[in-house]
Amino acid sequence: MKKLLDQVENIVDDALDGLVWAFPQYLQRVPGTHVLARVEPKGASKVGIVSGGGSGHEPAHGGYVGYGMLDAAVAGEVFTSPTPDQILEGIRAANHGAGVLLVVKNYTGDVMNFEIAQDLAAEEGIQTQTVVVNDDVAVEDSLYTTGRRGIAGTIFVHKIAGALAESGAPLESVRDGAEQVIHNVRSMGFALTPCTVPAAMQPSFTLTDDEMEMGIGIHGEPGTHRQKVKPARELADEILHQIASDLALKPGEDIACIINGMGATPLVELAVFAKDVAQWFHQVQVNPKFVMMGEYMTSLDMAGASLSVLRLTGDMTQWLLAACDTPAWRQGVRHDQ
Amino acid sequence: MKKLLDQVENIVDDALDGLVWAFPQYLQRVPGTHVLARVEPKGASKVGIVSGGGSGHEPAHGGYVGYGMLDAAVAGEVFTSPTPDQILEGIRAANHGAGVLLVVKNYTGDVMNFEIAQDLAAEEGIQTQTVVVNDDVAVEDSLYTTGRRGIAGTIFVHKIAGALAESGAPLESVRDGAEQVIHNVRSMGFALTPCTVPAAMQPSFTLTDDEMEMGIGIHGEPGTHRQKVKPARELADEILHQIASDLALKPGEDIACIINGMGATPLVELAVFAKDVAQWFHQVQVNPKFVMMGEYMTSLDMAGASLSVLRLTGDMTQWLLAACDTPAWRQGVRHDQ
Repeated sequence: MKKLLDQVENIVDDALDGLVWAFPQYLQRVPGTHVLARVEPKGASKVGIVSGGGSGHEPAHGGYVGYGMLDAAVAGEVFTSPTPDQILEGIRAANHGAGVLLVVKNYTGDVMNFEIAQDLAAEEGIQTQTVVVNDDVAVEDSLYTTGRRGIAGTIFVHKIAGALAESGAPLESVRDGAEQVIHNVRSMGFALTPCTVPAAMQPSFTLTDDEMEMGIGIHGEPGTHRQKVKPARELADEILHQIASDLALKPGEDIACIINGMGATPLVELAVFAKDVAQWFHQVQVNPKFVMMGEYMTSLDMAGASLSVLRLTGDMTQWLLAACDTPAWRQGVRHDQ
Repeated sequence: MKKLLDQVENIVDDALDGLVWAFPQYLQRVPGTHVLARVEPKGASKVGIVSGGGSGHEPAHGGYVGYGMLDAAVAGEVFTSPTPDQILEGIRAANHGAGVLLVVKNYTGDVMNFEIAQDLAAEEGIQTQTVVVNDDVAVEDSLYTTGRRGIAGTIFVHKIAGALAESGAPLESVRDGAEQVIHNVRSMGFALTPCTVPAAMQPSFTLTDDEMEMGIGIHGEPGTHRQKVKPARELADEILHQIASDLALKPGEDIACIINGMGATPLVELAVFAKDVAQWFHQVQVNPKFVMMGEYMTSLDMAGASLSVLRLTGDMTQWLLAACDTPAWRQGVRHDQ
């Protein structure tokens, strides 16, 4: 496997510097850490939002730092949880006196390290709340989790919690809003090719020329089953059926969705897949009010995609549409429904 | 090779439908054509801007349709020039009575078909001007061109011509602004892996596990030479040296740049590469005022990157910073220099 890198051991450090250089109006690096924090001034009474996890999922999470989403993102090594001391640095950077919400994806290492960091923050008098995202319907337990994994649905949690925080909502309300999203979002993905962790330089698994893996996570961990490569339409049907069943989605309901590329999927293919997703929603009479298509939560150089569906309840649409400006957020709106 | 597709012969049609569905606030399809046109109202006196070319380069060109860039984008089949009748449809959609600028990348088929379309438009009384982008410094003539190829530097032409048009400038001024960009922009790219045209299902060329191709175009056409894979820093040096020589770039000059992923390059690697680019500019004392990093002009599933450097002359910075809202444009600004 070939990578565009300098020293493989410096990949996270180098990439964080590159991101700050490319997006200086949004991002600054907390000196001596793997934390990217917001540049622009924030109100003193605003709840801070921190997310993070292993690297290799770019633009997650640094790409979501900015107005209306995260105050700080903490980057671990590739596919490795950030350490508690780094997470604590992120909490400190995000704290403006009104408390900090930690948005954690459900992986054993992340959950444990964010918990420790939360304890350390408490010792410093920083009030925190944690939500754990577990949107992946593919598997109940997995290689790295007890319970379901957290994947691209996390972006909706960032957005809605971020908008609530920006509006001046107190910590408990921001947490409750995030919990509402977690309660109503489901995701599932597939891989056409494996991904290769730079330090390993060997693919995390192998697939033959006509095989794919369904229900894959974002770390190259196994999915639910292997199958022959199917047309995009059948993949959309298979995934959306599983998501809709789990959500108990009913005709007439309003939803938001993310059509997410896994890192090496050409945009032209993702656009074809989007057409199939649109047709499925139309057939089952579900109303996509808010559509996002692009690379939002990747898995290094994996080819494949994931779908995330959020049932829109309460004020969610308002918070999804609220002003937001970060390197990787793209406003997505359906005007015609 | 595995692709996320339905019928391979429908890839362009399906992808255009998917793009319109995902970005309805920007894009509409001219019925019965492969043309994506702007949704939002435009002033009657505005010069129209049309670009286009083969598909497989997404987000080019549909992703640049919207306020401050293109009025219409014409999509050919994968890596194939759009036909003159389709280009004519694009010109019609972009024409509001003040004439239309055609932004063409220098490939023999594109140049010929845009010329024919221009003649057809003249017969309908639509005034047009054409500019041909030839920013690739790698090769003088190539498999598909006489003279240099047009690649990712085209995005700067779209942006600056689009901003001029939006400001109410007449057709000749918009064309002159575009020519100024073409005169001052240079690009060069490389591939770590080949790309695979869906209908062919075989890579367009082969590279061994430790080989890369320098000076590659955006269609899998040959570059200047093959070499062992080098660290990102050496690739940045090699490419920027060639670009800067060709541009006769001098210390103290202001530039804009695009760090462009070719389709299958993970963002974490592109960020590492960006750091190296930043260091090179710093060493040669060139001032990057405007930085863009991401996928702007791709080559299907090719892993690799290209760099584009624009010398900022006259009012270019103003037009780069002018308001713009399209699916794929991201404002990139250096605040600190």
